[in-house]
This record gives sequence, C-alpha cells and structure tokens, in this order.
Amino acid sequence: MELQQFEGFTPVDGGVCAAKGFLANGVCCGLSHKALPGEEEKPKEDKPKKNDLAMIYAENPCSAAAVYTTNKVKGAPILVTKAHLENGMAQAVIVNSVNANTCNPDGVEKALKMCSLAAEGLKLQPSDIVVASTGVIGQVLPIEPIEQAIPALVEGLTSDGNNRAMEAIMTTDTRPKQLAVEFKIGDTVCRMGGMLKGSGMIHPNMATTLTFITTDAAIAPAMLQQALSDVVKQTLNRVSVDGDTSTNDMVCVMASGKAGNPTIKKNDANYETLKKALYIVMMNLARMMARDGEGATKLITCICTKAASEQTAETVAKSVITSSLFKTAMFGEDANWGRILCAIGYADAEFNINKVSVDIASAAGSIAVCREGVGVEFSEETAKTVLSEEEIEILISLNEGEAGAIAWGCDLTYDYVKINGDYRS
Amino acid sequence: MELQQFEGFTPVDGGVCAAKGFLANGVCCGLSHKALPGEEEKPKEDKPKKNDLAMIYAENPCSAAAVYTTNKVKGAPILVTKAHLENGMAQAVIVNSVNANTCNPDGVEKALKMCSLAAEGLKLQPSDIVVASTGVIGQVLPIEPIEQAIPALVEGLTSDGNNRAMEAIMTTDTRPKQLAVEFKIGDTVCRMGGMLKGSGMIHPNMATTLTFITTDAAIAPAMLQQALSDVVKQTLNRVSVDGDTSTNDMVCVMASGKAGNPTIKKNDANYETLKKALYIVMMNLARMMARDGEGATKLITCICTKAASEQTAETVAKSVITSSLFKTAMFGEDANWGRILCAIGYADAEFNINKVSVDIASAAGSIAVCREGVGVEFSEETAKTVLSEEEIEILISLNEGEAGAIAWGCDLTYDYVKINGDYRS
Repeated sequence: MELQQFEGFTPVDGGVCAAKGFLANGVCCGLSHKALPGEEEKPKEDKPKKNDLAMIYAENPCSAAAVYTTNKVKGAPILVTKAHLENGMAQAVIVNSVNANTCNPDGVEKALKMCSLAAEGLKLQPSDIVVASTGVIGQVLPIEPIEQAIPALVEGLTSDGNNRAMEAIMTTDTRPKQLAVEFKIGDTVCRMGGMLKGSGMIHPNMATTLTFITTDAAIAPAMLQQALSDVVKQTLNRVSVDGDTSTNDMVCVMASGKAGNPTIKKNDANYETLKKALYIVMMNLARMMARDGEGATKLITCICTKAASEQTAETVAKSVITSSLFKTAMFGEDANWGRILCAIGYADAEFNINKVSVDIASAAGSIAVCREGVGVEFSEETAKTVLSEEEIEILISLNEGEAGAIAWGCDLTYDYVKINGDYRS
Repeated sequence: MELQQFEGFTPVDGGVCAAKGFLANGVCCGLSHKALPGEEEKPKEDKPKKNDLAMIYAENPCSAAAVYTTNKVKGAPILVTKAHLENGMAQAVIVNSVNANTCNPDGVEKALKMCSLAAEGLKLQPSDIVVASTGVIGQVLPIEPIEQAIPALVEGLTSDGNNRAMEAIMTTDTRPKQLAVEFKIGDTVCRMGGMLKGSGMIHPNMATTLTFITTDAAIAPAMLQQALSDVVKQTLNRVSVDGDTSTNDMVCVMASGKAGNPTIKKNDANYETLKKALYIVMMNLARMMARDGEGATKLITCICTKAASEQTAETVAKSVITSSLFKTAMFGEDANWGRILCAIGYADAEFNINKVSVDIASAAGSIAVCREGVGVEFSEETAKTVLSEEEIEILISLNEGEAGAIAWGCDLTYDYVKINGDYRS
C-alpha cells in the first residue's frame, strides 16, 4: 500500500533511525523458544528464529511523552514506564515480544529488571528507560534470555538498525510497519519516524498497539505530550481490528532536539508543523496496522462527513468498521449495504437516519447505495468490481453539519479465526 | 441441549400453540424464490422450498405487549406494530422471513398492507394485527406472493401448527427454537410457550431477535408490558452472537386469558409466577439462540458473581462473551484465559481488577485459571478436556459484593465468516 502524502513532508527511509541522534537494534534472545506451561521445551531448531528483543537509544536525553491503554488490566511494563516518564525525559527503549508480562505475580519486578539491565548496558539510570512487552498474557517472563542478550543488543546499536528493531516487536504481524518523513520547522530541516506492531487485540481506546516514534525536533515535554494526546485520538484510536482493547498498548515519542530548531514551548506555527508531522506518521502507521489486521485481505477506510460534530462522525465511522457482519461482507466482496446502515443505526450518537447517504468506492470506481436512509438501485456488476480492490472506502454523509472523521479497519476472514483459534498467540 | 428447568414449571409440547386459544400456521409463499437485484430470477426448483410466511391467531382479543430494537434504523413493520399495540391489545401475528422490509421507500405501506390482508382473511381489524419481517435489508418487499398465500395461511391455522410457523420465521437458523411450560396461578393451570428466530445480527440491546410468546393466563396489558420489559433485560438482552444490533428485533407476548385465572392487575404473587414463567421461556430461548449463533459449535455461559451491582456483573459478563479473541479461543478449545482477563479489564464498569478470580467449567470438570488478577498454574490436559464439551461456563468472581448476572454467547468460527461472507443473508 502507498503512503498518504502531504505537501512539505517528504518520505525518507530509516524508520525510528531516520531522525538525528537515534540508534536501534533487535536480536533474538530466545523467548520464542520457551515452552508454554504443560508444553515440552522445544529444541531451538524447531521454531523459526525471529528477533524478539529491541532497543532504541538516543545519544542525548530526550523530551518524551506517552499514552497508554485504558484497559483495567495493565501490563507491568506500562506501570514502570509511566513512573519513568513522570519527569518528561527518557533516553532509551527496551521492548520484547512473545510474552506480554501481564497478570504475572512478579511482573513489575521483571519490568524493573529489564530497565536496570538496559541502563547498565547503556551507562544510564534505570529511570531513563522506557520498557514495553507484547505477547501472551499471564505467563511468567523468563528474564535470563533477556539478561544474556543485553551485551549483544547494546553492542549492535547502529543508525540503520531500525529494521532489526522492527522485526523484534512483531507478533502475528505479517509485515513491518514503519515510516519516516522530513520537514522544516522554520528553516531547520527535521525528521520524524516511527514503527508500530499490532495485528490483533486492536480497538480504538487510547493508543491500541505498541508504537515508538522518534524525532530530532526540539520540543518541551509538555508540548510533546499535548501533541501526542491530540493526534492519537484522530489516528490510532480510530482503528479497530477486532474490538478487543489490549492490556499493553503504548505509544511513546522521543524528541532529541538534534535538528537544532528553537525549542517549541508554546502552541505556535512550529508546534502545528510538528503536530502535523506526528499526524502523518501516526495516520500512516494506523492505516498499515488496519491493513495488516489479523487475517485481513482488505484495508477499509470509513469517512463520515457532514456531521453535526466530530464526535458524532467518529462514533458513526467507528461503528461501521467495527461491525462483524459488515467486515465479513467486505471479505465476501458483497455490497450488502444494509449492514452498513444497520451499524450506522446502532451507533451511539444523535442524528437523523432519514438524511443519511452512503457510497462505496475504490480505485475501480464508486457506487451510490443509499440516499436519505433508503436504498437506491445499483449495478451488482459495478459493485463487484469496486469491491474486488484491496483498499475500500465507505463514504457516509449525515447531511446535517460540517464536521467529519475517518476510521480504519479491515475485513473479517477465515484467517482471523485460524490465527486466533489454532494456537495461543 | 437440555432445557433449564425450575420446580413448578413443567415443560410441555406445542410451542406457541401450547396455551389455550392459539392457532398457528406457516406456508411457503415464495419470497425465497425472488431474485436479488441484478440476479437472474431462479426457477423455483433451484431453491429449497422452506416456509417463509407465518401466522399466529388467537380466538379472542388478547392483552399484548412488545419490546423493540433500539437501532435508529427500524424496519417498517416495527413502526406499524408499535402503532397497533398502543391500545395494549392484539389478536394475530403475521410475519415473513427472507426480506426485512427495512430501508425501503414503500416499507410502511407494505407492512400496513400485510396487516390489512391478514385482517381481511381473519375477519379482524388491521389494528388487531402484529406484523414483523426478517431477512435482507433494503430490498423492496414483493407483496403479491404474500397476498396470494393469505387464504391458505388462514385456512391451515391449527392448534398444532407451531412447527410450521417456526420454520417460516427461520433464516440462517440451523434448528427450530421453541418451548412451552405449564404452571399454576393459584389453582388455575396455565401455559406459556414461545418461538424465536435469530442466529446472526444479535447483540444485547433490547430484544435482539424475533420472538413470539403466547399464554392463556389472564393479565392486564400494562402488567404484561412491565413483566416483558423486566425479563428481556435478564434474558435476550444478555445474548451476543456478533455484536450487531439488528434493525428488526421484536419480542411480542399475547395473553388470551383462556386459562380462567383472575386477571393479574397488580404486582402480587400471581404476577411473580407469570413473570417467572416468562423468564423460563425467554431464558431458554436465549440459550437456544446463543447455541445456534451463526457458525457456532459451542454455547458459552458467562456467570459473573460477587459484584457490587447487577449492572457491573452484567457489563463484565457481556464484555467477555462479546470478545472476538475470547470467542476464537473457545473455538480452538484453548484455555487462553488472558483474553478473558483482557475483556474483563476493558469492560465499562468500576471494580478492582486485583480481586478478580476466573474458573472455566463444563460437564467434564473445571479449572481455576486466575486468582486475585494473577494467573495460577493449571493442567493443560484437564483444560483441553473441559473445553472439548459443547457447553462451557466461564465463572468470574469480582469478590466485591453480592450481585450477579449471566450472559450467553457462542464461539467464533470459520462458519460465521462463511455464512456472512459467502452470500447476501
């Protein structure tokens, strides 16, 4: 799929290493070779060797901001990271996949240990470290493989290590999800890049995945937090794969200031530019995440316009992309628009259903399926052609106001059931 | 699956015909042979001949009560039935499957026409008729097949016609769902029976299906409405198959009074007895509906106890049975209890996650998987045996109070995707 681009923001390579002052690495420490309880320990050669431990390192202390899952069940790393970011500063990230370190009796202890191990290797304080985990909930995290891997993880940090780090945070993801853009704040060239993991247990509610973003722009921690909190609402919080809000979601942004722009300290034009860069990075990561939803064959973008408020537009758009019946119809490439109307109708928002119009569009064309809440005739042949594409847009107009919102989702397929029914993931 | 039984309420045959004074019938009027837009008209012999038009007739005017979908998109029959039940009385039901008569330009006109046709055939007033439709949304309902079938539909009304009527309201249902019980109000023997259709587009939010219930007990319309409104909250509103709240949901109860008990006019012991009968009928229909959820291989019952309030218990229990990740794990017979904790954690209710305990049980035994919010070791072998059963119970204790609630759901399987992805249903 192609990046959604904006004038003045040029895509560049490098992901989380694109901005000045950031190094990254990823290694296979062997967490994926550990046996599940009751399972025989498998010989290493029986499981594919995939990186499972990542590090991002900044050459100097960074302004840092984060948002977290709203699930009452919170992974232990979330609690530790929250404490470490209280001063708005961080200098490194350590993150493992395979095991979520959640609902464990010694979870916080292990998360703190990951921080102290990373700090020792990097010659930093443990409170400079952001820690995150993703994987199976409720299995004790073995710390030994992580401990043994720290020297190699630190040793291998490079300014082009983003791909190795990206691989290490993937779980059921089928493709890496990263990008970076270059833009100007005043006359200063800045960069921002990000990487994201997430494929299932994804539903709009604060963050919804593990995402790490780096920039070399200079910005005060409070302003960085404000930008992140605003942008997450319009990007990651508008994605749903399966309606399940994960226990370990986190988005973390670090700003090194190495680009050399005057530090952004208030809500001015420079702040708006940085916020737009953040929107572009997170919106594109959101689209990649939806497209790579577990088992997905299609990216579904639902655009709700002419709403009385952005909140109404968002509620309606999310309701449609979350509907299982709609999602299966998309998989079947069936223009069963009654299911779209049904999902609009049970959205928890106020509007006049008799004013609603719906169109379905893709690169292959578009069809009008509903006007003023009532079906209109359309060619099933054209509908089939439109729906045969991999990227589908559902265009809803409430015809009541001027506000709008976009939400992203995917189809519901046999493979979603297979991935989640066949083994403990 | 077996009926859940209660002392003093004896299961009897006859479904909606079990109570005195009710006749029923179902015929195939040919709606299922109609072509979809853009589809060639198929010769009748190419489609299985299934009843698609049902009638329930009471020999005398009945107290009547109903609850309806909360979806803003409402089927035209819902609007017409609401108007007809304003006086709390009804004498017959006409209902078709295949076509939902929803989002059509002439929907209300056609629903009114169904009532006037039924009234004419039965020598009643159109306002005595309850009308309902279920099937595809947004396709104009052809009235001619219904008009032509009315004489045979009326002619064939019998006191054992419940099976024919049951068949006529089925869509993707794989099995009939009906039952009746006999009980005493004072010294008077009474009966109550019901039938239900529903397999997909099912989510707790007022009614969630087409359900018709008949009783020969005598009760004032306002008391019948009160009993129905209360019981639906604890039964049908606690079932979820796929999270989609349908546009045409309706539960309608008719009470003929033919049993001869003194008419129930206030909240007394007799009222409580009738309400309990209604609970037994609707709770068992709710279980049958969940078990026959589209593609389901298992009935999942989630029982949340020791909650501070019934609302909290209900929210938690519903959250678990609605989770796609939990449902796929049940299909895979995988004791992935972290997904249960995750769904408990994002439930929109207040409680202390660190007090939560979870057990998984079935006829084959039970396993404790979580205590005080933390996983406990269990035998994967025992877990596999427990989960291999067709009826699974998830037992959640919040350890905070005395309230509880039960919710019913099913697993999420390949067949759900197949049923809803493969053709317009």
